[in-house]
Amino acid sequence: MKVDGVAYRTIWVNRDGQSQDNWSIGIIDQTKLPHRFVTSSLTSLAEAAHAIKAMIVRGAPLIGATGAYGLALAMRADPSDASLDAAHALLVETRPTAINLRWALDRVRAKLAKLPPDARQAAAYAEAAAICEEDVAVCSSIGDHGHKIIEQLYIEHGRKRPVNILTHCNAGWLGCVDWGTALAPIYKAHDAGIPLHVWVDETRPRNQGASLTAWELGRHGVQHTVIADNTGGHLMQHGMVDMCIVGTDRTTRRGDVCNKIGTYLKALAAKDNGVPFYVALPFSTIDWTISDGVTEIPIEERAEEEVTVMTGKAADGSIASVRIVPDGSRAANYGFDVTPARLVSGLITERGVCLASEAGMTALYPEHARPEHAR
Amino acid sequence: MKVDGVAYRTIWVNRDGQSQDNWSIGIIDQTKLPHRFVTSSLTSLAEAAHAIKAMIVRGAPLIGATGAYGLALAMRADPSDASLDAAHALLVETRPTAINLRWALDRVRAKLAKLPPDARQAAAYAEAAAICEEDVAVCSSIGDHGHKIIEQLYIEHGRKRPVNILTHCNAGWLGCVDWGTALAPIYKAHDAGIPLHVWVDETRPRNQGASLTAWELGRHGVQHTVIADNTGGHLMQHGMVDMCIVGTDRTTRRGDVCNKIGTYLKALAAKDNGVPFYVALPFSTIDWTISDGVTEIPIEERAEEEVTVMTGKAADGSIASVRIVPDGSRAANYGFDVTPARLVSGLITERGVCLASEAGMTALYPEHARPEHAR
Repeated sequence: MKVDGVAYRTIWVNRDGQSQDNWSIGIIDQTKLPHRFVTSSLTSLAEAAHAIKAMIVRGAPLIGATGAYGLALAMRADPSDASLDAAHALLVETRPTAINLRWALDRVRAKLAKLPPDARQAAAYAEAAAICEEDVAVCSSIGDHGHKIIEQLYIEHGRKRPVNILTHCNAGWLGCVDWGTALAPIYKAHDAGIPLHVWVDETRPRNQGASLTAWELGRHGVQHTVIADNTGGHLMQHGMVDMCIVGTDRTTRRGDVCNKIGTYLKALAAKDNGVPFYVALPFSTIDWTISDGVTEIPIEERAEEEVTVMTGKAADGSIASVRIVPDGSRAANYGFDVTPARLVSGLITERGVCLASEAGMTALYPEHARPEHAR
Repeated sequence: MKVDGVAYRTIWVNRDGQSQDNWSIGIIDQTKLPHRFVTSSLTSLAEAAHAIKAMIVRGAPLIGATGAYGLALAMRADPSDASLDAAHALLVETRPTAINLRWALDRVRAKLAKLPPDARQAAAYAEAAAICEEDVAVCSSIGDHGHKIIEQLYIEHGRKRPVNILTHCNAGWLGCVDWGTALAPIYKAHDAGIPLHVWVDETRPRNQGASLTAWELGRHGVQHTVIADNTGGHLMQHGMVDMCIVGTDRTTRRGDVCNKIGTYLKALAAKDNGVPFYVALPFSTIDWTISDGVTEIPIEERAEEEVTVMTGKAADGSIASVRIVPDGSRAANYGFDVTPARLVSGLITERGVCLASEAGMTALYPEHARPEHAR
């Protein structure tokens, strides 16, 4: 998508930029957003791993793409079997909850393992690039399918008022290579001329909504309002939300959705008020090996400083941090929660929209259907 | 309760302090907490109104007490009928959602209106003091009744582990004259030796949980952990919350509860996971004139800067503010939401615990029962 009139993706090989080295990897430093737009280069496996772990890049698809390019950087330094295995292991551990990261790493490693070491660097770059191109196509397709749902709501309301959509966290183009997942339908509908307004959950403790989602929607010209995470229930009680769309880090084969902490609370409110609750996701975030998200998905615990310290732009324009919890008080920081499938109206995938159930999902993905007796 | 070993209430007449003037009103400046403990004096109606509107004092009972003393300060300046009516009108408008404020103001005005002007000042101070003493007694009684619920949970779990309690916003002693409402049962249980641990919702956008609740629990020695408002659902899914206790600004005659924005989301999660959800309240916050909280209670909208700007302690110890939303993005700030009675396990009042229903409430408050045919 565009930033100040310039088309960007979230990750690229430095071919046309200042460095033009044809091998280092360009990224947007997302920790600087929304107050500064800064790009930087990854030149080693360690830098790629750090970018994922420190959330300089974030969002399931972008983490996968960064992991893939991390393997390419590792192969450039040392294409041996030992290097490949060590790089894979290092990258997997950077975000253990991110199924998409493991998928991308497994895919690149499988491709490389068959090749002689001297062929691995080129093949790794090619495979990482293919992952990126596929992600763009997938997100565009998710956008097309979700666009139809938004258009239908607009028609149902007599084409008289903007469609109000609530989203949580950032599942926009910044979290993917382009387009986004949850925000792709919004961009497609907006570009098609459907008037809409997005309620943007702040998404504590890392504020991805208040910073990243608000930033990218604003740059694209989509009407939006930032709200505290506490607010969505009230809005839904009063008919101020027509639908919710969120992303997911991991989806189980029965349709349970593991997404940013707080998603579950919004899904409960949507159910209680008859508001459709959609989850947009690429195929690659479905974990067909598990069913019960609440009991089977380990939830990442992160540093308590993400809760106790808040960072933003000070009056003098500098980026500053302030402690918002009294000295001596502790904090807990669970990164994700699980929304049971019963609260999900539908899954918006690149192949279409389906019910959040094993039957619904395997109708779109028959290659993952189990024999009758195994269900 | 105690602060650094010194017994405090949240509001007092300056009799023993530095000023010893026997008429100015001492308060704790709650906007400075949790990083600084500062007291200040109210010397006029305008200062009392400002203290309420700017949330230097906050919490339903304390707002009522401050309103009462605001009328006393007005009578000291001018005890005429016109002054009394103007002061009442000014104070009512400072927090239109706070039913307790109106109750206290009506009570003092009714007392004064019957008196000749030269008797009004003394009577106003006496009535404000009576409101304070009654509030302390009420909160202590709420604490005693709620303590029994916590004790029962402790016994049910075999006296083997601390009782985990989740609370939202600040309904502690800082919001009352002493003891608190939602936190009174916690203080009583803690003082009685029941081991417990409190999950403290940060409570965006004003962070009353992260700042005030964490501060007062910490000073009293109660184990607690601050969490983002998004977190409670996950904790309840995993059996990490034994009960919720929250306060209320306004309760309808059928038991709908209007409390800090986000309360409704926690009540939904409690219901979904079989966690008892209690609301602690004094008699005076019940509005017997309305039933359906969602449609009948107007919800206060506050300044968007409360969402877009965050204040805390900078690295150098100064209090600083940072903007956390991109320039150009707007925010909405609804102060409260309504939790329908069907999600409330029980109301903890000064007369005992009852169901959140008209029958339950009027069993404790038979003076508010309606004739059979009017129900």
